Amino acid sequence: MKQPIGVFDSGIGGLTVVSELRQELPGENIFYIGDTARVPYGGKSQQTLERYSLEIAGLLLAEGAKLIVVACNSASAAALSRLEEAMRVPVIGVIEPGARAAVEAGRSGKIGVIGTRATVQSGAYHRNIKRFDPDAQVIAQACPLFVPLVEEGWFTDDVTRTVARRYLDPMIDQGIDTLVLGCTHYPLLRPLLSEIYGERIALIDSAQACARATRQLLEEHELLDPGAEGGRLDVALTDVPADFLDVATRALNLDIREVQNRRVQNYAMV
Amino acid sequence: MKQPIGVFDSGIGGLTVVSELRQELPGENIFYIGDTARVPYGGKSQQTLERYSLEIAGLLLAEGAKLIVVACNSASAAALSRLEEAMRVPVIGVIEPGARAAVEAGRSGKIGVIGTRATVQSGAYHRNIKRFDPDAQVIAQACPLFVPLVEEGWFTDDVTRTVARRYLDPMIDQGIDTLVLGCTHYPLLRPLLSEIYGERIALIDSAQACARATRQLLEEHELLDPGAEGGRLDVALTDVPADFLDVATRALNLDIREVQNRRVQNYAMV
Repeated sequence: MKQPIGVFDSGIGGLTVVSELRQELPGENIFYIGDTARVPYGGKSQQTLERYSLEIAGLLLAEGAKLIVVACNSASAAALSRLEEAMRVPVIGVIEPGARAAVEAGRSGKIGVIGTRATVQSGAYHRNIKRFDPDAQVIAQACPLFVPLVEEGWFTDDVTRTVARRYLDPMIDQGIDTLVLGCTHYPLLRPLLSEIYGERIALIDSAQACARATRQLLEEHELLDPGAEGGRLDVALTDVPADFLDVATRALNLDIREVQNRRVQNYAMV
Repeated sequence: MKQPIGVFDSGIGGLTVVSELRQELPGENIFYIGDTARVPYGGKSQQTLERYSLEIAGLLLAEGAKLIVVACNSASAAALSRLEEAMRVPVIGVIEPGARAAVEAGRSGKIGVIGTRATVQSGAYHRNIKRFDPDAQVIAQACPLFVPLVEEGWFTDDVTRTVARRYLDPMIDQGIDTLVLGCTHYPLLRPLLSEIYGERIALIDSAQACARATRQLLEEHELLDPGAEGGRLDVALTDVPADFLDVATRALNLDIREVQNRRVQNYAMV
C-alpha cells in the first residue's frame, strides 16, 4: 500500500487544492481530512488553530501520510511553523506558494490579497510576498461573505457580483493588478472575477501554486510517485458531510468514494 | 452572591436573547458563554451538537447557574432533550417559546420559519408548531447567508435586501402571514424585514418569546429574583472575541465588562 499525501482543511474548501493535486500528481494517493466538526477556522485564534491543526495532522500521520499539505489558508497562516516543528514528515501550506506565484506573475508589484478575516489579520501573505519582493505593495481585504456565497453555490450570481465589486473595486482603484485568492473556496469564484475584471488583474490561485510546490517538495525528499495515473482519493470528515460537499465535488469533478468519519476528541491535546 | 441565569450560544448571536432577558428580568445576573472556538453550530450533526451543548452547559453549572437558557436554535433543535435529561437545573430553549408565540399570533395558520440549515433540517419548529396547532401549515426555509450578512453589520444593506427577498418572497407567495425568526442573529434584521414586508407578515422573535418563557420557568421553580434592576452580565468565550462581538454589543446596547475566556477541551466527554 503506497503512502498517501495527507491533506487537511477546516472543511470542504480544501478540495480545490486536492483537485489541483490530482492534475499535478495523478499517480499519488491522497488522504483528505476536513475538520467539519469545527469548521470554519477563519475567525478563530492562533492558539486554537495550532491545536486543531496538530490534532488533524496527527490523524493524517495515523493514515500513513508521507507529507502533509495544509490546504487551508487560516491554518497555514496560524499554525505552519508549529506543524513543521512537530511533524516527522515534510509540511507545506498554501501561503508561501501563493505569495511566490504572485511575485513571479511580475506585474507592477501592487498585489492584492483576499481571504478570511483570520488570514488577512495574520498578515501572513504580506510577510511572504515581502520576502520574495521587498518592494512589493500589498493591499489586503477580508471577504467574509465569499465563503457562504460559494457554499450556496451562487458562483456567478448577481448578488455575488455585487458583493465582489464592493470588496474588490476599492483595491482596483488603489492600483492592484495582481490578486491572490487567499482562501480555498475562492477558486470557485474565478470565472466570475475574470468576467468582472478581465485582463486588468492576474488572478493567483494558491491552490494551483500549492500543488506545484508539493511536487517540488516530494522530489526534494525523494518521495515522488512517478505514476502517471491511478492515484486514489480518500476523504474523511470529523462530522457528517455538509451539503457543500456535493456542490464542491460536482464543481471540481472529483471522484470520491465513501466518505469516512474521524473523531477528533479522542486525541491528546499537544 | 446570587446565582446567575446561564445562557449559551455557539457564538455571539445569543446576545439577542440576553438583550431580551435584561429587559424582561432586569434584576437577574446572567452568565453568558459563546462557544466561539467551534462556532457555528448551524451545519453540524446532532451527535456533535449534543456533545458541545453538554460541555458548555457544564461550564455554566460550574459558574453556579440556576437555570440554563439554550440561546441557540441549532443547539435547541438538536440537544434540548439530552440537556434536560443530563442537567440538575431547569433548561429552556428558544424553539418551543418561538413556536408557541407564532401560533398565538393567531393569524391564518400559515407560518413561515427561517433558520440555519441545521435548524430547518431538524424540523424542530415544525414539530413544535404542530403541537400547539395541529392544523397549522409550516413552510421552512434555510437562510445561510443571513448570519454572515449580519456579522458584516450589513443590517439594512441593498445586498441583504436582495438576499432577503430571494429567500422570503417564495414563502410570501405561498401565503405565509407569520414568520418565525428561527436564528439568534435574525432579530438584527427585523427593521429590514419590516420595511420590506410591512404589515403583511407578523415577525415572531424567538429571543423575545424565550425571555418571557424564562420568567415563567423561574417562577414555577421559585427561582425568580424580584429585583427591578441591578442584574449583572458576565460574558465568557471559548476562543478570542470575534469582531462581531463589537457589532452586536453596539447594536444591542449591552453593557459587558471584561470578556472572559473558558477552554472547552479539559472537560470530560459525556
